[in-house]
Amino acid sequence: MIMQRVAIAGASGYAGGELARLLLMHPELEIGALTAASSAGSPLGAHQPHLPQLAGRIIQETTADVLAGHDVVFLALPHGQSAAVAAQLGESDTVIVDCGADHRLADPAAWAEFYGGAHAGTWPYGLPELPGQRDILRTARRIAVPGCYPTSVTLALFPAFAGGLAEPDVVVVAATGTSGAGKALKPNLLGSEVMGSVSAYGVGGVHRHTPEMEQNLSAVAGVPVTVAFTPMLAPMSRGILATCTAPATPGLTAAALREAYENALKDEPFVTLLPEGVWPATSMTYGANTAALQVTLDERAGRVVAVIAIDNLTKGTAGGAIQSVNLALGLPEELGLPTNGVAP
Amino acid sequence: MIMQRVAIAGASGYAGGELARLLLMHPELEIGALTAASSAGSPLGAHQPHLPQLAGRIIQETTADVLAGHDVVFLALPHGQSAAVAAQLGESDTVIVDCGADHRLADPAAWAEFYGGAHAGTWPYGLPELPGQRDILRTARRIAVPGCYPTSVTLALFPAFAGGLAEPDVVVVAATGTSGAGKALKPNLLGSEVMGSVSAYGVGGVHRHTPEMEQNLSAVAGVPVTVAFTPMLAPMSRGILATCTAPATPGLTAAALREAYENALKDEPFVTLLPEGVWPATSMTYGANTAALQVTLDERAGRVVAVIAIDNLTKGTAGGAIQSVNLALGLPEELGLPTNGVAP
Amino acid sequence: MIMQRVAIAGASGYAGGELARLLLMHPELEIGALTAASSAGSPLGAHQPHLPQLAGRIIQETTADVLAGHDVVFLALPHGQSAAVAAQLGESDTVIVDCGADHRLADPAAWAEFYGGAHAGTWPYGLPELPGQRDILRTARRIAVPGCYPTSVTLALFPAFAGGLAEPDVVVVAATGTSGAGKALKPNLLGSEVMGSVSAYGVGGVHRHTPEMEQNLSAVAGVPVTVAFTPMLAPMSRGILATCTAPATPGLTAAALREAYENALKDEPFVTLLPEGVWPATSMTYGANTAALQVTLDERAGRVVAVIAIDNLTKGTAGGAIQSVNLALGLPEELGLPTNGVAP
Amino acid sequence: MIMQRVAIAGASGYAGGELARLLLMHPELEIGALTAASSAGSPLGAHQPHLPQLAGRIIQETTADVLAGHDVVFLALPHGQSAAVAAQLGESDTVIVDCGADHRLADPAAWAEFYGGAHAGTWPYGLPELPGQRDILRTARRIAVPGCYPTSVTLALFPAFAGGLAEPDVVVVAATGTSGAGKALKPNLLGSEVMGSVSAYGVGGVHRHTPEMEQNLSAVAGVPVTVAFTPMLAPMSRGILATCTAPATPGLTAAALREAYENALKDEPFVTLLPEGVWPATSMTYGANTAALQVTLDERAGRVVAVIAIDNLTKGTAGGAIQSVNLALGLPEELGLPTNGVAP
Repeated sequence: MIMQRVAIAGASGYAGGELARLLLMHPELEIGALTAASSAGSPLGAHQPHLPQLAGRIIQETTADVLAGHDVVFLALPHGQSAAVAAQLGESDTVIVDCGADHRLADPAAWAEFYGGAHAGTWPYGLPELPGQRDILRTARRIAVPGCYPTSVTLALFPAFAGGLAEPDVVVVAATGTSGAGKALKPNLLGSEVMGSVSAYGVGGVHRHTPEMEQNLSAVAGVPVTVAFTPMLAPMSRGILATCTAPATPGLTAAALREAYENALKDEPFVTLLPEGVWPATSMTYGANTAALQVTLDERAGRVVAVIAIDNLTKGTAGGAIQSVNLALGLPEELGLPTNGVAP
Repeated sequence: MIMQRVAIAGASGYAGGELARLLLMHPELEIGALTAASSAGSPLGAHQPHLPQLAGRIIQETTADVLAGHDVVFLALPHGQSAAVAAQLGESDTVIVDCGADHRLADPAAWAEFYGGAHAGTWPYGLPELPGQRDILRTARRIAVPGCYPTSVTLALFPAFAGGLAEPDVVVVAATGTSGAGKALKPNLLGSEVMGSVSAYGVGGVHRHTPEMEQNLSAVAGVPVTVAFTPMLAPMSRGILATCTAPATPGLTAAALREAYENALKDEPFVTLLPEGVWPATSMTYGANTAALQVTLDERAGRVVAVIAIDNLTKGTAGGAIQSVNLALGLPEELGLPTNGVAP
Repeated sequence: MIMQRVAIAGASGYAGGELARLLLMHPELEIGALTAASSAGSPLGAHQPHLPQLAGRIIQETTADVLAGHDVVFLALPHGQSAAVAAQLGESDTVIVDCGADHRLADPAAWAEFYGGAHAGTWPYGLPELPGQRDILRTARRIAVPGCYPTSVTLALFPAFAGGLAEPDVVVVAATGTSGAGKALKPNLLGSEVMGSVSAYGVGGVHRHTPEMEQNLSAVAGVPVTVAFTPMLAPMSRGILATCTAPATPGLTAAALREAYENALKDEPFVTLLPEGVWPATSMTYGANTAALQVTLDERAGRVVAVIAIDNLTKGTAGGAIQSVNLALGLPEELGLPTNGVAP
Repeated sequence: MIMQRVAIAGASGYAGGELARLLLMHPELEIGALTAASSAGSPLGAHQPHLPQLAGRIIQETTADVLAGHDVVFLALPHGQSAAVAAQLGESDTVIVDCGADHRLADPAAWAEFYGGAHAGTWPYGLPELPGQRDILRTARRIAVPGCYPTSVTLALFPAFAGGLAEPDVVVVAATGTSGAGKALKPNLLGSEVMGSVSAYGVGGVHRHTPEMEQNLSAVAGVPVTVAFTPMLAPMSRGILATCTAPATPGLTAAALREAYENALKDEPFVTLLPEGVWPATSMTYGANTAALQVTLDERAGRVVAVIAIDNLTKGTAGGAIQSVNLALGLPEELGLPTNGVAP
């Protein structure tokens, strides 16, 4: 077997580290160039001490020359940078995977409002579970990895909207671990501030993942869906727990809701609909490319309530990216991806 | 000055411990009997090692005889037990404070659905910030302390409903620290399970605090309010962060919303409306009898979004109880209660 | 390839869960019977929700009949129970692996003092890194898995004692995550008690792992070694960080110390001597069968100071057990075992 | 009563915030100027959101002019800066309190080795529990607040050395919460790195608090004491748990050891010798100016083992500082200082 060779741009960050961790377990992908900006020249071990297998590898500059010649290039860069690097790489058969936001939003106005700067357009969206998306990814050479929150919310609600079971007026409140904010040196991300405390941020429709959630759910629903989204920072390193709720359509029963979710998810290798009465915990998915999901009908309030847990770095970023790459390379979708969490 | 003497029933639990901690700082209340059930006969230090001033005090049985003769009796007992103990104490001028659920719900049907067993009726509700409630508490001899979640949600939304600014279709998602679940020995409350993980529980309209939230908000709104409530367990010992959202009434502006909250809260000693753009963290209120609140208008989704942080054991239980007792005893409302948190 | 079939007794506990997690990634071992005591009859998913691949498997009773017919049997049982089960299994070619304490201590007096009850004798000790031990394990049919603390301390100090670089008067202080205490429902293990707090326990020579550390280090040193051991409980689910110190022998230099450790560890697949100046963190080894080690000479105090990090459930228990089983089955020692941690 | 007026230099940091929190509860001290360097000009609420009572106070520049005219000036500044500011303040009757390291070490060589730069000399050492120290502080106008680790270690071992019960060859391993490292924006202090992980740092005699511990214990012992000190960072915001051990002098009995500690500590208002068999947890002292201490004789290893818990920000810094100031101002030593922790 000939291993396919992959490069990681942004290897010193959290998403880059998770890509490396997962790729080291992948039987058909091998790690080539590891690149970064300010960390170039230092060994990876100085930034990712949990990866002793790569400790001595020297990080290179993120340039088109260094990234050239790989079968797959993962771009784990701040938004606005992936598009520039991708442009430098030019047309090629290389699978280029943008783990950032640059190629997610189809609507230039939404891009301008939430990100600003030039709109790079869209690439095939790396969420195989979305109806029809798996086939698109099988031939994709460019992949836009979904945001971590949109991954969780879309998986939690697409069966409801695909089945016409919910009204398009969604409320989402989601807690994330601090790695979702990256390795940025900000006072509010210091351990002393985070431990023992849950905090809200980006409230009121201003979080950048909002239009991406709306784009996904609107496509499934066939009508415009609005999402009122409130993110929270929780005292844990990894994990997202999202509570996603929308008014139930008239006449919906609990049994019909359950059945719709069972049917929509029964063949999904990475999404588990939990037994009735069991609710998700992020620990169920720690370090795994999985989602743990539960749904119920709140008959008192007339709402569909879906709760989902993922690991923001794995299924929410790096694992989801590799899952899409597996499809693009014609490999089995599950290849090399952990399906069991690390717990307790 | 003659100190008034208080008893704590349930002194070995988390609510009882917090009552003791706060009462030790109170200049006009002194601690008399400390009682419990299975812990009776052991020193308080074996259960509350953070309270060295009381370490040698022996816990007594929770009986009417032991509790008699105090000016104030706090009942920090499992639901269903306070009403029985209160009945044994009989008619008297003693201020009896039920920190449990027995005397909160006015609707016997809601009691039967969510708690079961005999309905004990209602006592004056210990949330001085509710319009009109402060005066009621000044003459109360019986006080029903609100649940921790209803305290947070009611404080977060009463200005909106009092001002007619929101539709009565509320969605609440709230994260709590584990002390909210008490000292019960359950596997899901073990440190190994809780640390590094956020989990959902009691989803879909089944949490017992739901009807209490609806009762409070309906009274303020003047129409029936429904609440779709999802609680989460977060990896911290203390604190509640609640995101509370409802559709905005047509024509509401962000400025009008802000002004309504400023007016409603400007004289409240324990509720801080944060500066615009600052969002609550539970660490702001750690160990303090305070609430930190922010509100915004999500114009994209057309919703009022209020986020509030409290310490579930302090403002959410023991501190709120003492605040009401201060009123009932004719003392200054703030007396002896911490208004600054312990952070970082 | 024919998979070898393994049973796990004690599958509902933390050690049993970690064995299952690791075995699911092992290419030549497949999971057969999963057994327990009080949990028998329930699905594994009710106890190990992070293992969706096994969620529907029903836990059986721990009996000789159920365990019979496997190539490997792991006993992850409370001390005192493994010996009884092993006796029932009788003589056979099955590899029986005691993850408990029953077969670790050679000295009946030490067993009597620290554990009590009948002394079961010793089995080959499952720490391949100990000089000479790897060869013993290649032919073993019975394996005594070391305790988690003794694993860490022995790995940290054996190069010093093998090289005659330290006096036999050891002081160890080690912090463990709460999973080291198992799933027992004790108040001091509740999340509310553990989070935000480090505590000491078993101080003063009374911890059961003390004689095991002394047994290992004495064997390497060739003289009796005493260990003054203080364990601490830290607010994390997994991990041990052990600081191990002993007086330096006269004339020892920092360079000689470093060289001795480099030589002793250079071929070890799972033990990393970190670059000079880098000190271990338990996150480096989270979920991995690895140890991260650093050593220095405190010239001011004249002491060798070695600090080591392991995951108590992986290298400290389940991973170490599988490492030894790989040897016993003639498989590559590293087969199926993760060498990269899950971080951040 | 006329309040005495205090200034805090370094008010935006963790030590400065804790000083402010405690001073707000002090009945005879009121807060005057709050100063800082880069934070000058911003409101305190932007840096200490847990202190709503001071939220609107504007931070001033740290200059002699601003600090002049207060009865007490607390300097919570990085080492090297306090001496310069103190020099600018000149001779005066103001009580100047250095919460940094500048005035702790008597030995210029130790200063040069561990800190470097000009040696400022010593001020009266602010640890009232040290034999003879309380009287010195009653007339002091300058106070050097001990380091947080030296506070814990000195309290834990001074009874042993004062009684001649231990040999002068000390080993200390101590875990600290992350606030001990201050608010510096370093990658290893990010929440994502800290949570779920214990790490070692400053191992091998290089931590700056080492000579201070040796200075204190040598003074008590009357002979030079060496300390082999290993600090660890634990996943909590506050707290130090220190295990302190030294060889027992020949013939020492457990009873004699216990008695010596009881006698040494029986009149101390802030140090609790726990009941036999109970071991300290940092949660016992959370936010309180207390120490929780236990001691035992490890007869197997022939060592005295003392374990102590303090809050590094309270008894370890700000609370200890106010305790000394109370003495210097002729106030009751305990005035305004919390003696009960915030737990769970």
